[in-house]
Order: sequence, then structure tokens, then C-alpha cells
Amino acid sequence: MRTANFRYPDKAAFDMVMGELKKRNITMETIADIAFDLQKNFYPDANKAEFLEAANDVLHKREVLNNAMVALELDRLSTEGQLKQPLQNIVANDSGVFGVDESLAVSIANIYGTIGVTNFGYLDRVKNGVIKELDTQKDGRVNTFIDDLVGALAAAVAAKMAHQYA
Amino acid sequence: MRTANFRYPDKAAFDMVMGELKKRNITMETIADIAFDLQKNFYPDANKAEFLEAANDVLHKREVLNNAMVALELDRLSTEGQLKQPLQNIVANDSGVFGVDESLAVSIANIYGTIGVTNFGYLDRVKNGVIKELDTQKDGRVNTFIDDLVGALAAAVAAKMAHQYA
Amino acid sequence: MRTANFRYPDKAAFDMVMGELKKRNITMETIADIAFDLQKNFYPDANKAEFLEAANDVLHKREVLNNAMVALELDRLSTEGQLKQPLQNIVANDSGVFGVDESLAVSIANIYGTIGVTNFGYLDRVKNGVIKELDTQKDGRVNTFIDDLVGALAAAVAAKMAHQYA
Amino acid sequence: MRTANFRYPDKAAFDMVMGELKKRNITMETIADIAFDLQKNFYPDANKAEFLEAANDVLHKREVLNNAMVALELDRLSTEGQLKQPLQNIVANDSGVFGVDESLAVSIANIYGTIGVTNFGYLDRVKNGVIKELDTQKDGRVNTFIDDLVGALAAAVAAKMAHQYA
Repeated sequence: MRTANFRYPDKAAFDMVMGELKKRNITMETIADIAFDLQKNFYPDANKAEFLEAANDVLHKREVLNNAMVALELDRLSTEGQLKQPLQNIVANDSGVFGVDESLAVSIANIYGTIGVTNFGYLDRVKNGVIKELDTQKDGRVNTFIDDLVGALAAAVAAKMAHQYA
Repeated sequence: MRTANFRYPDKAAFDMVMGELKKRNITMETIADIAFDLQKNFYPDANKAEFLEAANDVLHKREVLNNAMVALELDRLSTEGQLKQPLQNIVANDSGVFGVDESLAVSIANIYGTIGVTNFGYLDRVKNGVIKELDTQKDGRVNTFIDDLVGALAAAVAAKMAHQYA
Repeated sequence: MRTANFRYPDKAAFDMVMGELKKRNITMETIADIAFDLQKNFYPDANKAEFLEAANDVLHKREVLNNAMVALELDRLSTEGQLKQPLQNIVANDSGVFGVDESLAVSIANIYGTIGVTNFGYLDRVKNGVIKELDTQKDGRVNTFIDDLVGALAAAVAAKMAHQYA
Repeated sequence: MRTANFRYPDKAAFDMVMGELKKRNITMETIADIAFDLQKNFYPDANKAEFLEAANDVLHKREVLNNAMVALELDRLSTEGQLKQPLQNIVANDSGVFGVDESLAVSIANIYGTIGVTNFGYLDRVKNGVIKELDTQKDGRVNTFIDDLVGALAAAVAAKMAHQYA
């Protein structure tokens, strides 16, 4: 039921997302760096400070935060075995035909248009550096959503910069 | 971490979705009926049996089941207060700027192309009958995702029929 | 081949779109009015001037203008019989399984998130007022894209207002 | 105006698309090969004949053909200078902020779900082999849409195979 006077908790949502990312050693710098590496060949004059500023903007958008919170919570709940079956097993095994992880990611990337979506498609495929580590970690944690989330955040930052340079 | 030999549990996923819908008095017939009402003016010769068969097909697709399970679980977890803040409050209050409920729904409708998406947009807006009831229920349950889910399922069935009649 | 120094012609694109819309008696006011009618029940304090301002913003966005120009040109080229067969006939007959008209429209609506898309789905279905007239005109012109375009522009304006009021 | 008895010309649409692709030396084999190269590391037992069969299926889908015909026609019309300004110059210069080329491509890839979209994102970014040639050809032809179209067709074939192997 929609509550008329509910105020969206912008600060709490940002803090929750950054706090959860921090637990897996992901900071705003990590995301800005992935985006920078993705774009540096196209914009030789770009500097990291601009990418960090773009990452800060991206990570304050409600649509980004909403999808990020759901992604992070589904990984946590699955790690703790709290999802109903068979969803619990599907998420815990990162089933290749699940697709909701990529859907939430595309929702984030898509905020920055088709460039965001194609950037995400590329990062999802090459899965280099931090994203690869998250995808293959064997620490007992479920990391089904987090690798796509980080890829989508970096793709969004890169797309935001591409629009600025256009 | 992707497990190579994980087999997607088709039957368990179908049973879970139908069982959860049943708890809110939604059956395959309910969904077929909404779709039938949506299309009957366009196809005067259509009969309900065809819509029921289409509903059965839609509800056996993995992409539909995956999004449905996530939607149903997020309503359950929020009802039980198990989501981390501020996501818990955002979902429990069905915040108008959340949007992940509509995103999962659009992912379902979109499987049947643009017609699926426009059908969903219409149902989301008019929210008649069962969908309205779900949206305004005050039984202590969180119903943030279920109304959009039922609308998306009906929109998908209607789109499947539209493609068949084309 | 991408030309490095090409400058996007913002003013010419805006003038072209508004000029073509004008030929079918669609002005910025028309679009603002449809959006206003769509939202007035939700925001009783809203006034038309705000919707007109939002329409002006929407109609200056490059992503909107690009999709609008392609839509308007495809109607013109089909009216003049300049498209290769069988595309010429498919567009001229507004084939129900074509879908590119709705796709361009969804690309416009989607810039304003899921609310834009669901608004478009609703307008596409009810096709009232101006949109209905465009869809059923028998003046020898092909109007396959224009009705969806006007619906998408109004849906985008309504979504922009919904985000502002949130 | 929708004509009630219009029959979708499946064969003519297929022939038009394959004929236009052939003019730029793109055959069904070309598309199957790009998809095969994209997937061979994941499915060591896959053989090219299966990819060719998948390409044949993809290239017979109406939603694919519709988007492909529009893409091919926009390149042709722009090559012949028949588009109204400023759309003519925007397409002829393959403006980086145009985006309609990628949108039509995503519509094709999206038919095969998120895997289709991420595959396209990857191909759009790496642009290797045939796709690169099309993107950089200096033969006087406008090739703004064709490179994205070929990438989308290959991405769709690869996604179709991924679903089959899942």
C-alpha cells in the first residue's frame, strides 16, 4: 500500500550501498577506475578526477540506488540461506539462465542510454580485474549480483562521461 | 560462483510461483481472465480456453519464473521485516520512486515484445479488478511487487495471444 | 564513417521536428495538454504552464529529437512511396506486427524511466483525442509513426513531471 | 491507417534483407561465423552447422526483419541523400550521439533476452573483423546502421545458441 507521506531516504540509501560495497573492497575509486580504463583510449585528455566526480553523481541517483540495494540484498539473503527454494539454489549457484542479476544491472546502465547498455555488455563479457575476482570468489559468500552491479555502475559512469565529451 | 552442473529446477520454480500466487487467491484462471478482458474487443472469436493455454505457456517460461520468484520473495521478506534498511521501508511503503517492482514486471512483459510492454503499461495505469485489490489491500502484507507481477503476467498472456492472431 | 569534427545540429533538429509536427497540427501545447490530462488527477495543484515547460525540455533532448526525426521521416518517405518493398507496404498499411513504430516511441519514453514506458503503454492503448485522430486519418498520408511519436512525447512529459513531484 | 486484411510478406522481407546484406558481402555464413567465434570457448563441442541453423532461424523472425529493413533503408536513403536535413547529415556522419542505430540493434538482440543485449554490447565495443570493416569503409556508402545490424544479428545467434546449451 502506497503511503502518501513517505519520504525517500536518499542519504540512508547511499550509505547502505557504499557500506555493502566497502565490505567487498569496492569503493567509489574502484568504480571510477574501471570506467576510466574503459574510456581512456577515446578521451586522451580525460583525468581520473572527472571520472570520480561522475561516479559520485551516478551513485546518488535513486534509480541506481534502488536497483543496487535489491542486488546487494539478494546476495546477502542467499549467502545466509534465507531465500525460499528453489530461488535460494538458483541464486547460490549463479545459474546461467537466471538473468535477474543482469536485468537489474541493465536497469542501472540504461539510465545513461544505449551507450550505458553496450558498455555493460562489454564489461559483462570481458569481466576483467575486480569484476572477475568478484565473479570467481570462493569465500563462501554468494556473489551472483555483485559482479554485474559493479560492472553496471562502471558502465554508467563511462556512459555519463561519453555524453559529457560528446 | 557458477556451478557447472547445476540443473535449473523447472518444476520446483513453477510450483513455488503458483503456490505463492495461490496464497493471494491468484490462479492461472485469474491471469487468463485479465488477459481475455484486455483483448476480447479485438478478437471477438477468441475463447477463454485459448487464453488459459497461453497462461500455462507463459507461466512455464524460465525468464518469467525467475522474475516472478524474486518479486514474490521481496514482498514476503519485506512483510517479515527481513530486508536491510532503508530498503525495508522503501518496499514496505511502496515508494513511488522505487521502480524495481515495475522493472521486474517489464522484464516479464518484454519477453513478448513491445506489445507486452504496452499492455503492461495500460494495466499498470488502470489497475482494475484483482490488480487494484492487490494494490490497496490493508491486510498487513506488503503487496508492492505482486500487483505489478500479476499485471505483467496478464500483459504477457495478452501479447502472446496478439502474436498468435497476427 | 564517423567524422571526428561533426557538430550535432541541435537547433536544426528541434526546428525540423517542430515543423513536421506543425504540419499535422501538433504543437508543444498539444503534447503538454495530453500529458496534463494524464496526470491531473494525481497532482491537483499542477498547472499547464509547468507541463509546457517540461514539454519544452523534453523536445530539446537529442535522444528525443533523433528518434522523432527518424519516425517523421519514415512516415514521409512511405507517404511518398520511397521505401523499398516490402517495407513500403508494411509501413503504409501500419502492419500490426511491424513494431518499429512502438520501438522508437519506447526509446523516447524510456529516457524518463519505467514511468515513461508505462505512461506510453497506457496512451498507446487508449489512443484518445489527437492520438486517435492521427491513427485513423484517411487523408492519403501515412501516419504509422506519428501517433506513437505523439504518445511517447506526452508520456515523456508526464513522466518528467512525475519525477519532479516525487 | 491499419488495413485489416494486410498479410505480412515474410518471404519478401527475408529476401530483401538477405539481398541488401549480400551487396555488402554479408551472408548467413558471415553472421554464423561471428557468433561461433563469440561462443566457441564456452561450448567446445559446438559446430558451425548448428550456428548456421540458428542464423537461419533468427533471420526469419519478423521482429528481426522489421528492424533490419529499417536499418538498411536508412543507410541507403542517406547514401542517396534522400533524408531531410539535419537527419541526412547526422546519419551520413555517423554522429556519436545519434543512437538510433544502436537502438534498432538492441531491439533485435533483446528478442533473445539479456544475453543477446550483453553480446551486442561486447561486439559493438570490440568491432572486430567484418563489423570493423563495415564501420570504417570509405567507399562513399553510408554505413551507419549496417555495422550495428550485423553485430546485433550475430549477438542474437550467439544468444539463441546459449539458450539451447543452457
